[in-house]
Amino acid sequence: MEQELSLLWQRYQSVRSASMLLCEALEVDDLNLQAVPETSPLKWHLAHTTWFFETFLLKPFQRDYQPFHPQFEYLFNSYYNAVGRQFPRPQRHLLSRPTIDEVYAYRKAIDARMHALLSSAKEESKPLQQRLVLGLNHEQQHQELMLTDLKFNWSLNPLYPVYCEAPLPKSTPAPVLRFIAQTQGVVEIGHVAQDLSHPDTFAFDNEGPRHRVWLDDFAIANRLTTNGEYIEFIEDGGYETPQWWTSDGWATAQNEGWQAPLYWEKQNQKYWHYTLHGMQPVDPHAPVCHVSLYEALAFASWKGMRLCRESEWEVRASAQNIAGHFQDLQCLHPYSQASNNAAHKGSDLTQLFGDVWEWTQSAYSPYPGYQAAEGALGEYNGKFMMNQMVLRGGSVATPKDHIRPSYRNFFYPKDRWQFSGIRLAHDG
Amino acid sequence: MEQELSLLWQRYQSVRSASMLLCEALEVDDLNLQAVPETSPLKWHLAHTTWFFETFLLKPFQRDYQPFHPQFEYLFNSYYNAVGRQFPRPQRHLLSRPTIDEVYAYRKAIDARMHALLSSAKEESKPLQQRLVLGLNHEQQHQELMLTDLKFNWSLNPLYPVYCEAPLPKSTPAPVLRFIAQTQGVVEIGHVAQDLSHPDTFAFDNEGPRHRVWLDDFAIANRLTTNGEYIEFIEDGGYETPQWWTSDGWATAQNEGWQAPLYWEKQNQKYWHYTLHGMQPVDPHAPVCHVSLYEALAFASWKGMRLCRESEWEVRASAQNIAGHFQDLQCLHPYSQASNNAAHKGSDLTQLFGDVWEWTQSAYSPYPGYQAAEGALGEYNGKFMMNQMVLRGGSVATPKDHIRPSYRNFFYPKDRWQFSGIRLAHDG
Amino acid sequence: MEQELSLLWQRYQSVRSASMLLCEALEVDDLNLQAVPETSPLKWHLAHTTWFFETFLLKPFQRDYQPFHPQFEYLFNSYYNAVGRQFPRPQRHLLSRPTIDEVYAYRKAIDARMHALLSSAKEESKPLQQRLVLGLNHEQQHQELMLTDLKFNWSLNPLYPVYCEAPLPKSTPAPVLRFIAQTQGVVEIGHVAQDLSHPDTFAFDNEGPRHRVWLDDFAIANRLTTNGEYIEFIEDGGYETPQWWTSDGWATAQNEGWQAPLYWEKQNQKYWHYTLHGMQPVDPHAPVCHVSLYEALAFASWKGMRLCRESEWEVRASAQNIAGHFQDLQCLHPYSQASNNAAHKGSDLTQLFGDVWEWTQSAYSPYPGYQAAEGALGEYNGKFMMNQMVLRGGSVATPKDHIRPSYRNFFYPKDRWQFSGIRLAHDG
Amino acid sequence: MEQELSLLWQRYQSVRSASMLLCEALEVDDLNLQAVPETSPLKWHLAHTTWFFETFLLKPFQRDYQPFHPQFEYLFNSYYNAVGRQFPRPQRHLLSRPTIDEVYAYRKAIDARMHALLSSAKEESKPLQQRLVLGLNHEQQHQELMLTDLKFNWSLNPLYPVYCEAPLPKSTPAPVLRFIAQTQGVVEIGHVAQDLSHPDTFAFDNEGPRHRVWLDDFAIANRLTTNGEYIEFIEDGGYETPQWWTSDGWATAQNEGWQAPLYWEKQNQKYWHYTLHGMQPVDPHAPVCHVSLYEALAFASWKGMRLCRESEWEVRASAQNIAGHFQDLQCLHPYSQASNNAAHKGSDLTQLFGDVWEWTQSAYSPYPGYQAAEGALGEYNGKFMMNQMVLRGGSVATPKDHIRPSYRNFFYPKDRWQFSGIRLAHDG
Repeated sequence: MEQELSLLWQRYQSVRSASMLLCEALEVDDLNLQAVPETSPLKWHLAHTTWFFETFLLKPFQRDYQPFHPQFEYLFNSYYNAVGRQFPRPQRHLLSRPTIDEVYAYRKAIDARMHALLSSAKEESKPLQQRLVLGLNHEQQHQELMLTDLKFNWSLNPLYPVYCEAPLPKSTPAPVLRFIAQTQGVVEIGHVAQDLSHPDTFAFDNEGPRHRVWLDDFAIANRLTTNGEYIEFIEDGGYETPQWWTSDGWATAQNEGWQAPLYWEKQNQKYWHYTLHGMQPVDPHAPVCHVSLYEALAFASWKGMRLCRESEWEVRASAQNIAGHFQDLQCLHPYSQASNNAAHKGSDLTQLFGDVWEWTQSAYSPYPGYQAAEGALGEYNGKFMMNQMVLRGGSVATPKDHIRPSYRNFFYPKDRWQFSGIRLAHDG
Repeated sequence: MEQELSLLWQRYQSVRSASMLLCEALEVDDLNLQAVPETSPLKWHLAHTTWFFETFLLKPFQRDYQPFHPQFEYLFNSYYNAVGRQFPRPQRHLLSRPTIDEVYAYRKAIDARMHALLSSAKEESKPLQQRLVLGLNHEQQHQELMLTDLKFNWSLNPLYPVYCEAPLPKSTPAPVLRFIAQTQGVVEIGHVAQDLSHPDTFAFDNEGPRHRVWLDDFAIANRLTTNGEYIEFIEDGGYETPQWWTSDGWATAQNEGWQAPLYWEKQNQKYWHYTLHGMQPVDPHAPVCHVSLYEALAFASWKGMRLCRESEWEVRASAQNIAGHFQDLQCLHPYSQASNNAAHKGSDLTQLFGDVWEWTQSAYSPYPGYQAAEGALGEYNGKFMMNQMVLRGGSVATPKDHIRPSYRNFFYPKDRWQFSGIRLAHDG
Repeated sequence: MEQELSLLWQRYQSVRSASMLLCEALEVDDLNLQAVPETSPLKWHLAHTTWFFETFLLKPFQRDYQPFHPQFEYLFNSYYNAVGRQFPRPQRHLLSRPTIDEVYAYRKAIDARMHALLSSAKEESKPLQQRLVLGLNHEQQHQELMLTDLKFNWSLNPLYPVYCEAPLPKSTPAPVLRFIAQTQGVVEIGHVAQDLSHPDTFAFDNEGPRHRVWLDDFAIANRLTTNGEYIEFIEDGGYETPQWWTSDGWATAQNEGWQAPLYWEKQNQKYWHYTLHGMQPVDPHAPVCHVSLYEALAFASWKGMRLCRESEWEVRASAQNIAGHFQDLQCLHPYSQASNNAAHKGSDLTQLFGDVWEWTQSAYSPYPGYQAAEGALGEYNGKFMMNQMVLRGGSVATPKDHIRPSYRNFFYPKDRWQFSGIRLAHDG
Repeated sequence: MEQELSLLWQRYQSVRSASMLLCEALEVDDLNLQAVPETSPLKWHLAHTTWFFETFLLKPFQRDYQPFHPQFEYLFNSYYNAVGRQFPRPQRHLLSRPTIDEVYAYRKAIDARMHALLSSAKEESKPLQQRLVLGLNHEQQHQELMLTDLKFNWSLNPLYPVYCEAPLPKSTPAPVLRFIAQTQGVVEIGHVAQDLSHPDTFAFDNEGPRHRVWLDDFAIANRLTTNGEYIEFIEDGGYETPQWWTSDGWATAQNEGWQAPLYWEKQNQKYWHYTLHGMQPVDPHAPVCHVSLYEALAFASWKGMRLCRESEWEVRASAQNIAGHFQDLQCLHPYSQASNNAAHKGSDLTQLFGDVWEWTQSAYSPYPGYQAAEGALGEYNGKFMMNQMVLRGGSVATPKDHIRPSYRNFFYPKDRWQFSGIRLAHDG
């Protein structure tokens, strides 16, 4: 195998085995859960990420390729209309066949075929390499989803299963909340177009083109909002006072009966929440997590502030090292502040990366000059640029080498099952 | 163990092991499927039937009984409000924990405790024995449901899994359709109250009291309606002609897009249907199956006939031997006529028992003088006597020693996932 | 006009003008309300009953008949598939055109054409006469629905409009509750087939054929259940205790949040209910009204009793004079007992007719030998013989000459907007 | 009355009488229609706009004010939580009372009280004057809704009622489609804060503050997209090709069965659409109307282009005179191009104002520095800044003096019942 390809193959092995590692502590029973359409079974994630390599690398680049199974193209296509019809998403939990052992065999077989493909490929095969790197980033996105989906599905089981046996880290107080100002002017944001075939310079197409934006004076909080601060909002009647809420946010909160973030419950005047460490007391110093954008906006409004625009966030984050708490199978829980600050020694701005995804007030729209790719892969990002809102910075469920200042995550404003939290801002 | 109890213990072992046997050919992946609320996962059936013995025998009769697990009372209670709250039925598929291995351990532990209970019980302990026999009949009902639920859940998987590897029996033509007349008069139906503590004289409370009914002249078909006859209805526009249908039946058929019985599909002008033997061509000589009452009534109306009343069916069936095709893990498919007739040598009326449950035109109501039992077990049958309709005779999924002429099964008129079919009748 | 036809014409004029009279106290605004699909606008009722005469008398019997309006056949067909497609029922309130003045003009024109038809018809034209009498009974059914629909639609207006300005009759106590026994045996029920072309011997096809039924010993209450008795059920926790309820009844009561009969609300520890006389205190002596069958069954179960079978009711009612409180635009409210008893001087059994429809425990099924008519009019009753339950006896909203001992009304067990109440019974 | 107030009173009379004029051609039957929650009955609009003056002017500014009716505050509050609870929006069509005559009396009484208030007010009463001008703009918004709601509700009546009896204007071809370029740079948009108490300088709070925006090079179409151009999209399979659509747009189009703009139907290979002039052939030269943003985006994508950002639109529109086709009770239909161009003599950019609202690709978000007002009126605009998208320019249903270059209208991307259309743009 040529050298660059050999490095990619190492990366491939590392990412692929990480997916398997996520399932190591689980039982077969756990791998087919799907409480709502958004949360796919882990078995399906394992098969779909494999399908991605088969569909977008082996089929186009391997001469005379014979599909592993005639119906997997249909069963494990997520949403690529250009590839063909898809098995209905809400019914993924009904696929007891293929069994998990058959899916493991599928992964193994595709890995072997990928090895063969790379062994025979040429160094200069940029399109192949780009797709390979895309496939690896794709699988890392699903690694985060495997954890968020598992957490949601398990939370509905009154036995509250435990994924991480290790104890939660010790809690220590958060630093004083301060706001860091930035002066108005034209700034540049977005990913600088570079070599997408290399893992270290890769970015998704939605992160570009790099472009100018006018920013007015603003100020951004030095840290994330804590559970303790959010409890003040709750106890001041935050969930009973429509004036803090957008109209859709209020309607959703009423219809769903929201009284606190997802997974929280109150027992004897104290808040507990379900975590991948089991049912735990809420740590007042740790970042609040599993709030919708509706709740984040209501909280900010109650504070007399607002959330960041994504351009404001990015222009500040670009100046920082990427450090924080990322996916670690020993601890899948946003950290309390002090333990986290260690990652940001000497910086005013802390917790920009890892811990929790930070809701912004920016709609997920195409950047000026954005063009979706041709063909099925053009469906990867572009077609979702409607009704969703941008989150930035990654979470404790994000693989560490899968985040960048320009990274744009996106969910609907009502969504709460991601590790999503709040950073305040205000006009300058 | 005293002798009568020892016989009951043998029966217990036989029924309990039959449930395990049903799962032998399956993978762990298969045991947690639930496509619609009505179809519980097989793992849940295995746990719930065990819960029944723990709740209704061990808890009341075993001194100082310690529950096997503190939350199983909640998790595996089906609908007994008098026992307490129930885990939501539509979410049973989310119970990845307890795992199947933990459920097997639960079964084993309860079996051991039941053995201890019976070993220390007295011959004269009639209430205990009655409940034991009830628990065994309860588990047999769930054995049929395990098959009907598995079939429904698997039918939504495009891989069409196979449960019975054995080939379907050879098809042979049905006898000529004839009608057997009965003259008007007062008849008696219902189970004769006897010793409910003995498996051979047991009946559910809804089968009694025995009581008188006036019947006008009527005539009943000598056999079940075949697939071939039903195809004539389809091809005569049966599903497009409202005049044959009740108002609710027509609305349901339109809303659901029914064009044929459940599991049928048409490929190249021929009918196929999904079965526990995989996807198979429809045998024109075999009894039509998986029709709702709405379809059964429409078919009868198209024929210028009607369905039986349950009293008409019972008065004829009481005179027959119980013979037919019942649960047999080699073949779970209604038989074609000739193979079936062998079971009815010398009788005019064939296929009364086994093959398919026969929809009647009788609402499931309390018989005159019916009183539900006191306490939670009073919820077993009585509270369902509204909106459901009676089916008679058992099916290929019914355990052979679980059927009687007086047996009243009941489902909603729209239900199709049971092995349910049609026997015609007309006024005399 | 020949003599019999002349008498029919008088009857026609009397029934038709009664429909107009019902609208006299209303504003144009009131005539197009439809809160739920079941409650049609009064304007639609006025047009549909006219459509019935045009469709089933003028079109078949009047030579070279020209329809009044080319689209009325579609707009005002209720559910006759054999006539053609129907404007969607839930959208009837959207028909601002034709205006009410245009509908009045439609009624007037059809009345004139009916007069012309009868003037040219022959005495011996039995089919025409039968249909005319059917049309008049049809319009009387809609007169009751106009009142029940108006009441439901108005009840959702916080201004609580008043239809009857007259005060409610004075309340007086109910007689002691007693039960009147009947001995077992074969009885006959159902309408005796007679001349359907005469208003006084007419019956709907679902009331026959007359046939034999075996009845066991039973006893029937001498009067209706009162509000006071029902309040005892409420205050004993009737709506919080699943044991009294059928499974479907309990689920419905929970989903709908039922705490009392329809239209009731509690203010300062006292019950009030919306009536066509405005918001009024609940009279403890008056019959309870606007309960579903689910509530009626739960009440009876709480009492340790049951409801009548329709055959039990009819065999007792056939021996009584038809007397009671029927449609009277001065008072549309079930009467308190004493005022009612005046109608039953010398009888043990009171309130069998008028006041409230009495739920029975009988499913609405075809009597033995029942055959629906050929053609569209066969849809009148037969296709509804599924999922609905029988009520007997008429109500304060029923026109007085529209009730018979054999009359079978039918609604779904969850329905509450009819004037429906409770009479207890028990086994002998 | 002082002079400024006297001018405001004249304006008040003019706006208020315009609402009445809109109803002049209608029947009482037409005034209470509501097919979906979004479309309120015209009677409700007449009462709610009156409620606005009573609630926000008479109650706070008139000493010892006695409400006209104790329940109107509840019945006619649209969505102001700070004022109190609201009668449920989906049930507004159930309010037959107050009758239309009572609502007319309500309007008349409030007008008289407003006259008294203004007569006693002082010139310097700026807050009162600001609210008065807000109330007039509010009523004008409802005048447009009265027409869009009536059109939607009538469209479901197969009689297709006619509102404008006048014939549609003659059709003439559109000018050649050209794109007008603008060079990149920082621009200013938003309303310049001025005297909100004067009708001519009024703007809604969501139009400010005025602020800077960076714009890249772009080009904007010289005219609106025509029906003819949109038909090409349809006939090229636009509604069957997911690649042109956003993910949510495609799902909505499939679920709703969209095949063309709202109100269109195809008869004998030709397109017709329901209009307030009745059912009419689609004019290929007139602007396409009643498309959702989803359809607008799909059309633009099929063209290889995009829609404007609202900042791009505004920066170009600010340089234009406000001319176009606005609310005119003789013609409520987007005009064909030639007739429209007359309004834009000498301008490159035509149809920016009137005809149809132009969907932009901009989410409806707060401008930098935006603060909602204190109290109930803060709910007017701010709480809707989530999930909705901006439209610009007004339509044939907009009152002429109710539009500005900075005017931001907003609807959900799926909405089609407004007069909404398409203007193309592309990157520079």
